[in-house]
Amino acid sequence: MEQTAFFIPLMDLIGTIAFALSGAVLAIGRDMDIFGVNILAIVTATGGGMIRDTLIGKFPPVMFRNPFYVLISSITANCCFVFFFFKARRKVAIPDNMVRVYAKVFFWFDTLGLAAFSVDGVYAGLSVGRHKSVFLLTFLGVMTGVGGGVLRDLLANQMPVILTRNIYACASIAGALVMAFCLEGGIERNTAILAGFFTVILIRCMAHRFKWNLPKVTSGRR
Amino acid sequence: MEQTAFFIPLMDLIGTIAFALSGAVLAIGRDMDIFGVNILAIVTATGGGMIRDTLIGKFPPVMFRNPFYVLISSITANCCFVFFFFKARRKVAIPDNMVRVYAKVFFWFDTLGLAAFSVDGVYAGLSVGRHKSVFLLTFLGVMTGVGGGVLRDLLANQMPVILTRNIYACASIAGALVMAFCLEGGIERNTAILAGFFTVILIRCMAHRFKWNLPKVTSGRR
Amino acid sequence: MEQTAFFIPLMDLIGTIAFALSGAVLAIGRDMDIFGVNILAIVTATGGGMIRDTLIGKFPPVMFRNPFYVLISSITANCCFVFFFFKARRKVAIPDNMVRVYAKVFFWFDTLGLAAFSVDGVYAGLSVGRHKSVFLLTFLGVMTGVGGGVLRDLLANQMPVILTRNIYACASIAGALVMAFCLEGGIERNTAILAGFFTVILIRCMAHRFKWNLPKVTSGRR
Repeated sequence: MEQTAFFIPLMDLIGTIAFALSGAVLAIGRDMDIFGVNILAIVTATGGGMIRDTLIGKFPPVMFRNPFYVLISSITANCCFVFFFFKARRKVAIPDNMVRVYAKVFFWFDTLGLAAFSVDGVYAGLSVGRHKSVFLLTFLGVMTGVGGGVLRDLLANQMPVILTRNIYACASIAGALVMAFCLEGGIERNTAILAGFFTVILIRCMAHRFKWNLPKVTSGRR
Repeated sequence: MEQTAFFIPLMDLIGTIAFALSGAVLAIGRDMDIFGVNILAIVTATGGGMIRDTLIGKFPPVMFRNPFYVLISSITANCCFVFFFFKARRKVAIPDNMVRVYAKVFFWFDTLGLAAFSVDGVYAGLSVGRHKSVFLLTFLGVMTGVGGGVLRDLLANQMPVILTRNIYACASIAGALVMAFCLEGGIERNTAILAGFFTVILIRCMAHRFKWNLPKVTSGRR
Repeated sequence: MEQTAFFIPLMDLIGTIAFALSGAVLAIGRDMDIFGVNILAIVTATGGGMIRDTLIGKFPPVMFRNPFYVLISSITANCCFVFFFFKARRKVAIPDNMVRVYAKVFFWFDTLGLAAFSVDGVYAGLSVGRHKSVFLLTFLGVMTGVGGGVLRDLLANQMPVILTRNIYACASIAGALVMAFCLEGGIERNTAILAGFFTVILIRCMAHRFKWNLPKVTSGRR
């Protein structure tokens, strides 16, 4: 347990900062004020954990008991806001460039957050007990991984990225499955965590790089 | 309990397949890829039960403990996808026809799912114990019946049908009320289940057939 | 406890009626039928309490155990509907006037509901026990205060007001913080409740009156 004590809190921190940045960048792109930027950052960063804790019956969810993650999200959001605030003032970035920057930054933070929270959710499922199974662990991992992003997209009144970005939730499922099967197969915890984490990153990057597309009914005819 | 053992799992199966189809058809109509079709089908089919189990404090919700319903939803979604995929390839259906087909198919699956899950929710409420009442049973029935559809509509970024389709939730309330009152009045369980189920179907079909409309403030002046 | 017995149920009633009216007015403005008006009113009035009870592990949520609040919301919604129905028939209000009336009425009801439920949520947090803290109490207060409005906005397919109306959630946070700190400092319960309640009202009115704006990245350049 001593070795895992280092990895899971690290995953939590990476995931929190990463998803907070994805929420903040989206909010800035939607021209929200500093409070909206904070709200979206906090919801994205803590939403997955809140859904996970609610589904396994842990009340109140960890974000309420320990203000650390909410504070980290808020600090991250405010740093992000200040950065773009002064970047805009210096007239260095023109609107088109800023849109491309937002998109690239958003992709990376979203991917890191997805990977970190997917393994975090699987790990949380280990404490469930009676109903534990690869299926349950994987589902908890995916819920925790995509949950914050779905809440973020609902609040920003856009269709959740899990339905529009190809290979998004697939990456989370793959990473959670890999970690769940590793643990089932007796592989050491930290190794399982890293295996799941990098599986998600790898699949997201490859899908982005090689423009993987899943089949559609109309296949581009619309 | 032996007789009910046949009806409630049958309701669960009908509801799961029906709502999975409604979600899949909506996703295909929105030109989502095969994964989006699966996601929307699974969420619509299992969302109501997840909300119901969360509200009565049953953790983790049944869909996580037993992968059967998620598998059924996924198989249904993939069959639906394959059907429309090849239908589109054969160039038999033109876009207008496909829109009408989607709408008709969507209506029937949505109605069957609503009926099945409304009675399912009332039945689940029987195990609550201390706070049981016709009010609670009816509310659980309606939550389970409309919950999956609301989550589906939120994910597809459209206003939930319970607010736009006349007599939609009314049918669910009526069916749940009928079943709850039957049980309160000592009527045998299976009869109560069937009474509630067909009440929902009847009201939905009559509203659709006779174009029942509830009053509005502006009554068509807009 | 006797003195508080008067204030908290009064807050509950004010909040329920106020938020029910805000939901009803929004639904009427969106041209929904009488059932949609009821649904939106009930969801707005009871949604905050449902989220709060779910987060502190109280099942089933109070709105299900006691139909009083759902009934009050429904009666309020129907009165509101009848009022605007006959107002429209008498051809007194032209569309532009009605839009302004809706907006003003919506603002006041929304503010009263926000204030009442913010203090209500803090009060509910006092029963949590082991994890109690100013942070947790404040968070529960804000969740209860803004939760119903967020659900209302999601159902009406618009971006939640907590992200678009300046100083909206800030007012809730301020009121909840004031009440939580008062209780922490040993101030008598009713005084703490009133302090929190009027803090929310004051901040919302001042922000509205003086058009307070929080900083944005682009500061109006868009």
